Amino acid sequence: MAKRQLYNLGEIARRFGGDLIGDAATRISQVASLESATAFDISFVSHPRFLSELAKTKAGAVIVGAHDRDATALPRIICANPYAYFARVSALLNPPAAVEAGVHKTAVVERGAKIADSASIGAGAYIGKKANIGPGASIGAGTFIGDGTTIGAETLLYANVSVYHGCTIGKRCIVHSGAVIGADGFGLAHDNGVWLKIPQIGGVVIGNDVEVGANTTIDRGALHDTVIEDGVKMDNQIQIAHNVKIGANTAIAACVGIAGSATIGRNCAIGGAAMLRGHIVIADNVSISAGTLVQKEILEPGEYTGVYPFTTFRRWVRNAAHLQELDELVKRVRRLERGLESKKGGTS
Amino acid sequence: MAKRQLYNLGEIARRFGGDLIGDAATRISQVASLESATAFDISFVSHPRFLSELAKTKAGAVIVGAHDRDATALPRIICANPYAYFARVSALLNPPAAVEAGVHKTAVVERGAKIADSASIGAGAYIGKKANIGPGASIGAGTFIGDGTTIGAETLLYANVSVYHGCTIGKRCIVHSGAVIGADGFGLAHDNGVWLKIPQIGGVVIGNDVEVGANTTIDRGALHDTVIEDGVKMDNQIQIAHNVKIGANTAIAACVGIAGSATIGRNCAIGGAAMLRGHIVIADNVSISAGTLVQKEILEPGEYTGVYPFTTFRRWVRNAAHLQELDELVKRVRRLERGLESKKGGTS
Amino acid sequence: MAKRQLYNLGEIARRFGGDLIGDAATRISQVASLESATAFDISFVSHPRFLSELAKTKAGAVIVGAHDRDATALPRIICANPYAYFARVSALLNPPAAVEAGVHKTAVVERGAKIADSASIGAGAYIGKKANIGPGASIGAGTFIGDGTTIGAETLLYANVSVYHGCTIGKRCIVHSGAVIGADGFGLAHDNGVWLKIPQIGGVVIGNDVEVGANTTIDRGALHDTVIEDGVKMDNQIQIAHNVKIGANTAIAACVGIAGSATIGRNCAIGGAAMLRGHIVIADNVSISAGTLVQKEILEPGEYTGVYPFTTFRRWVRNAAHLQELDELVKRVRRLERGLESKKGGTS
Repeated sequence: MAKRQLYNLGEIARRFGGDLIGDAATRISQVASLESATAFDISFVSHPRFLSELAKTKAGAVIVGAHDRDATALPRIICANPYAYFARVSALLNPPAAVEAGVHKTAVVERGAKIADSASIGAGAYIGKKANIGPGASIGAGTFIGDGTTIGAETLLYANVSVYHGCTIGKRCIVHSGAVIGADGFGLAHDNGVWLKIPQIGGVVIGNDVEVGANTTIDRGALHDTVIEDGVKMDNQIQIAHNVKIGANTAIAACVGIAGSATIGRNCAIGGAAMLRGHIVIADNVSISAGTLVQKEILEPGEYTGVYPFTTFRRWVRNAAHLQELDELVKRVRRLERGLESKKGGTS
Repeated sequence: MAKRQLYNLGEIARRFGGDLIGDAATRISQVASLESATAFDISFVSHPRFLSELAKTKAGAVIVGAHDRDATALPRIICANPYAYFARVSALLNPPAAVEAGVHKTAVVERGAKIADSASIGAGAYIGKKANIGPGASIGAGTFIGDGTTIGAETLLYANVSVYHGCTIGKRCIVHSGAVIGADGFGLAHDNGVWLKIPQIGGVVIGNDVEVGANTTIDRGALHDTVIEDGVKMDNQIQIAHNVKIGANTAIAACVGIAGSATIGRNCAIGGAAMLRGHIVIADNVSISAGTLVQKEILEPGEYTGVYPFTTFRRWVRNAAHLQELDELVKRVRRLERGLESKKGGTS
Repeated sequence: MAKRQLYNLGEIARRFGGDLIGDAATRISQVASLESATAFDISFVSHPRFLSELAKTKAGAVIVGAHDRDATALPRIICANPYAYFARVSALLNPPAAVEAGVHKTAVVERGAKIADSASIGAGAYIGKKANIGPGASIGAGTFIGDGTTIGAETLLYANVSVYHGCTIGKRCIVHSGAVIGADGFGLAHDNGVWLKIPQIGGVVIGNDVEVGANTTIDRGALHDTVIEDGVKMDNQIQIAHNVKIGANTAIAACVGIAGSATIGRNCAIGGAAMLRGHIVIADNVSISAGTLVQKEILEPGEYTGVYPFTTFRRWVRNAAHLQELDELVKRVRRLERGLESKKGGTS
C-alpha cells in the first residue's frame, strides 16, 4: 500500500554485490516476471528454460548467473545465485508495511502484560496476563495471545491467530492468519473403554526467523516443550503434534502432518502432504517427496519417496487389484524358477 | 431461524417447471429425505436405489424423473434432473437469513473504506483502509478484511474469516469461517543454508458464485495473482498455493492441496484429499479420484486414480514388502521367459 | 498459571487406589518424565523399554504396573494401568484454569440468549440470538456462537472458535482454537454445467466429553444432523463432512478426513491422515492405520492398512513404474505356468 521508492541499478549492485553490466542509472521500482516486466521492473533468470523469455522481455534490467552473462543486451547484474539476489531486491522494493505503534482502542490487554512502546496491537486483539510483546512486534486484529506468552521483537502475527498460554515465539517471525500455536497435544490414556485426557503441561518454543503458514497448528508438549528451531519455514495447513522437534532451516510444504515426538533434522525439505509417524528420527539434510508417508526413521541424508503413481481409473483398477496378491505372485515365480531349474537338472 | 413460508405444489411447478401430477393444492413447507418426510414435506428420487423408500415415504409430494413417473401415487413433479430441481425447491423454502444492513457498533472501519448502505458488517469485524464492501454483502463477526480488498455484492463471509489486503472476491460468493484468503505464498530462495523470503506481491482474484469452505486457504500470488474463476466450489480445508489458476465451475472436495502455479481446467471434479503437484496443467473435464497424488500434467478428459488399496494389516504387510522388489520380480519373470523360450528352442 | 497444590503420596493412593510401597508422606507437586523428574515429581513406567530410565530417574515417586513392583526402590504406587493412573494424577495436579464467571465488557450477547451465571464469556466473543450457554461453560475470546446454539455445562471453547447456528455441544467438551462447527456441508447438484447449492438444513449434535482439536471442521447436515457421540476424541485439522455419524469413544488422530454420510462405529481408532469415503459403514472396534484411504465398508473389527511404503527416491522410481504393468506381469506368469505345465505334459 505504501508508495514504493525508486532505486537505480548501481545502488542495487552496491547494496547486494554482483557485477553490473550496462547503465547503472537504470531506474527500478519493482520486480516482475520476464513475461510481464516493463521498463521500471527488474526480472531474473534462474534456469536455462527461461532464456527464450529473456530474449523477449521488456524488463528494464535483469539478474542473471555467470553462464548467462552475455545472454542479453539489457542492463544486468551477474551473480552466483540469481533467485536469492532477486529475493533481496524484492524485499528492498517491497518492504513490509510500517507497524503503527500503539494499542488499538478496541484491543484488550490484561494485567501484568508488557508491551513494548514500538509494538502494535491491532483492533480487537487480546493480550493475556503477563504476556510479553517485544519491540516492533505486530499483533494482528482479532489475534489472541495467551497468559504468559512471549512474542519476540519484530515478529509479525497477522489477523485471527491464536497463541495459547505459556508459549514463546522468537524474533522476526511471521505467523499467518488462522494459525494455532500451543493447543493441547493429543494425549489420551485408554481406561476401561473410555479415554482419559493427559494434561499437556509443556509449551511451544519457536526460534527466530520462523514462518508459520495460514491455519497451521503447532501443539504444546505433553511434559516437555514442542520445539521449532531458528529459520524453519512452514507453509499452510501443517500439523505439528506435541513434542515434535524441528531442526534449524528445515522447510515444510503445505498440508504436512508430523506426529507426536518425531524429531526432524536440520536443513530438511518436506514435500506437501507428506505424513511422518510419531517417535521417529529424521536425519539432517533429508528430502521427503510430496505425499509420502514416512513410517520409520531415516538416518541417511537423501531423497525419500513412497507414493502410488496415478493413471486412468480404468488402468488403475486393473492393476491395483493385484497388489493384494503380490505375495502369491512372488511365490508363483519362485515355483516357476524351481520348476525350470529341476527341468534343467533333468535334461542335463 | 426465520419463519418458513408455505407454498403449494402448483406454485412450485409454475416457478421451476416440470409436469405436475396430483393435487396442485398440496401444501409444502420444507424439503426432507424420503425416510423422514412428513405431510408438509417434499422429497425426491434421484436414483433407482431409493424406489423402495419411495414406496414407504410419508412425504406430501415428491420430485421424480420421467422413468419414475408412475412409481408412486403421491402428488409429484416430473422433471429431467430431480436432484437439481430439489436444490431449487430447497433454496426457495430455505432462503438465507436476511442481512441486517449497517455496521455493528463494535466493528472497526478504517479510513477510506467504502461500505454499501445495504451491506452488513458484523460485531468485531475489521474493514481495512480503502476496502470496498458491495451492496447486500455480509461480513461476519470477527472477520478481517485487509486494506484495499473488494468484496462483491451479495457475497457472504461468515464469522472469523481472514481476507488479506489487495484481494478481490466477486458477487454472490460464500466464504465459510476460518478461511484465509491472501496469505503469503510459500516463496523461498535458498542461500548459503538459510531461506530468504520472496515477497508475495500478487493478490487473489475470486470470481462470482464461488464457495470457499471452512478453514480453506488460498494464497496470494508471488508476482501475479492467484485466480479462481466463476462458479468454482471448494469444500473445507483445501489449500490453494500461490499462482494457482482454477477454471470455472470446477468442484473440489475437502482436504485437497494444489501446489504452486498449477493450472486446473474448467468443469473438473477433484476428489477429497487429492494432492496436485505444482506447475502442472490439468485439462477441462478431468475427474481425479479421492486420495490421488497427481504428479504430472493431465491433457485428456477422463477419470484419474492412484491410491493404494487397503486391506487387513496382516495381508497388507505380507504384500507391501514386495513393492520394493517389483523391479527384481519383473527381471526374474523375463529370465524365466527366456529360459522357457530357449528350452523350446532346445527341444524343437 | 495458578499456584499448584502439594499432595503426598498417601493422599494420591487413597484417591485413586493402587498399592503404595514406601514413604506415604512423600510430597508431590507435579508429574514428569523419568528423565527430567526431580524430587517433588511423580513419574510412571508404562512399558518395559522405560526400565533403564527408571533405574536412573531422580523422581520422588513412580507409578508402575504389577510386573515392575520391585523394579525400583523409590516410593511407588502399583496399579493395573500406570498410564491411566498417571493421567488421573496429572489432572489432579494440573486442574484447568478456574473459569472467571461473567460476560466480558467487550463481548456481544444478542437478545434472547441465555447465559448461566457461572459461565464465562471472553473478550470480543459473540453469542447469537437465543443461544444457550450452560453452567460453568467457558467461551474463549473472539469465539462465535451462532443463533440458537447450545453449549453444555462445563464445556470449554478456546479462543477464535466458530460454532454456527442451530448446533448442540454437550457437557464437559473441549473445543480448540480455530475449530469450525456447523459450516455448510458440501452439497451441490450439477445442472447444465453449473453447480446449484443444496441448502444444508441439518445441524451438528455433539455429545458429552468430546474433544475437538484445533482447526478441525465438522459440517452441519444436509437434511439430518451430523452426529458425534459421547467420548469421541478428535485431534487437529480433521474434516468431518455432513451427515457423518461417529460412535462413542472413537479416537481420531490429526489430519483425518471423513466424507459425507459415513457411519463410524464405537471404540474405533483412526490413524493420522487416514481418509474415509462417503456413505460407508465402519464397524465398532476397527483400527485404521495412518495414511490409509478407506474406499469401502469395514464390517469386521481388526486393523486395516493401505499405504505405499517409502524408500529412497532412486529405488522407488525403479519399482513404482511396474505398478502400471502389474496386470500384464500376472498374465506373463500365468503364461509361464501354462508353458511349464505343457512341457511337463510333453516330457511325461
